[in-house]
Amino acid sequence: MPMRSLARRIAAIALLSLATLVSLRAHKASAETVIRAVIEAQQAAWNRGDVEAFMSGYEASDSTTFVSATITRGYRQVLENYHRRYPTQERMGRLTFSEIEVMPLGAEYASVVGKWHLDRSREGGGEAGGIFTLLFRKTADGWKIILDHTS
Amino acid sequence: MPMRSLARRIAAIALLSLATLVSLRAHKASAETVIRAVIEAQQAAWNRGDVEAFMSGYEASDSTTFVSATITRGYRQVLENYHRRYPTQERMGRLTFSEIEVMPLGAEYASVVGKWHLDRSREGGGEAGGIFTLLFRKTADGWKIILDHTS
Repeated sequence: MPMRSLARRIAAIALLSLATLVSLRAHKASAETVIRAVIEAQQAAWNRGDVEAFMSGYEASDSTTFVSATITRGYRQVLENYHRRYPTQERMGRLTFSEIEVMPLGAEYASVVGKWHLDRSREGGGEAGGIFTLLFRKTADGWKIILDHTS
Repeated sequence: MPMRSLARRIAAIALLSLATLVSLRAHKASAETVIRAVIEAQQAAWNRGDVEAFMSGYEASDSTTFVSATITRGYRQVLENYHRRYPTQERMGRLTFSEIEVMPLGAEYASVVGKWHLDRSREGGGEAGGIFTLLFRKTADGWKIILDHTS
């Protein structure tokens, strides 16, 4: 084999490997980026008093689960609980998420740990906050929360 | 094609499909069965006062995470917290897990939601209990907890 042809082949293989690596990194970044965007959209929806838009971060499924002092199952039940606990924008306060950490679990699932804080007037119920663990699933409608443990 | 040969082929295909289905079901049952066995072993270890054996249900990794009022990272830190919070068998009390639900997340991860209860003397700190969400990963050492959110 002439040296020139060998060098060309090596260059081609190196380029292909690099392209694969870049594409894999982009793929990984993309899942985390999308998940962070979902969470940011939820924060923005909450802060304009739109509980329905906030809830669109969750999968619209009967198996969607919210865990706090009790276990609530089903998108509708979770939505109803939010409406009952936060009936007015004063009660909703101003939500801030922080220290968000996203961990991919294979290609179709991811977990998120983060902190939440509600800036709220005394009449609204006062300051509140805690830690949440979310489980995301890559659905036909995008990355959605299938489980939320908030404490 | 003679009818006899066709019938044999159909029978062979049916048998193969059945074998595949049985093997798939066995595979699914196996992950859940193993995870339930890990949790039962943890409960048994706790109730004989063996915090180290209880902790062997967690992955021995710096990224192992325990979430409650705060976020603790690292197997050692989690173990130290257990030792500090439960220094004696009287403080450990009698642990019961219940309403365990296992959800596979692809082939290598699974989530578990369940309830925990500590039967404990007044001197030991009294009754306690709550809900936990666990994330399991299939490691070289078997299925291990990589994240525990207990509230």
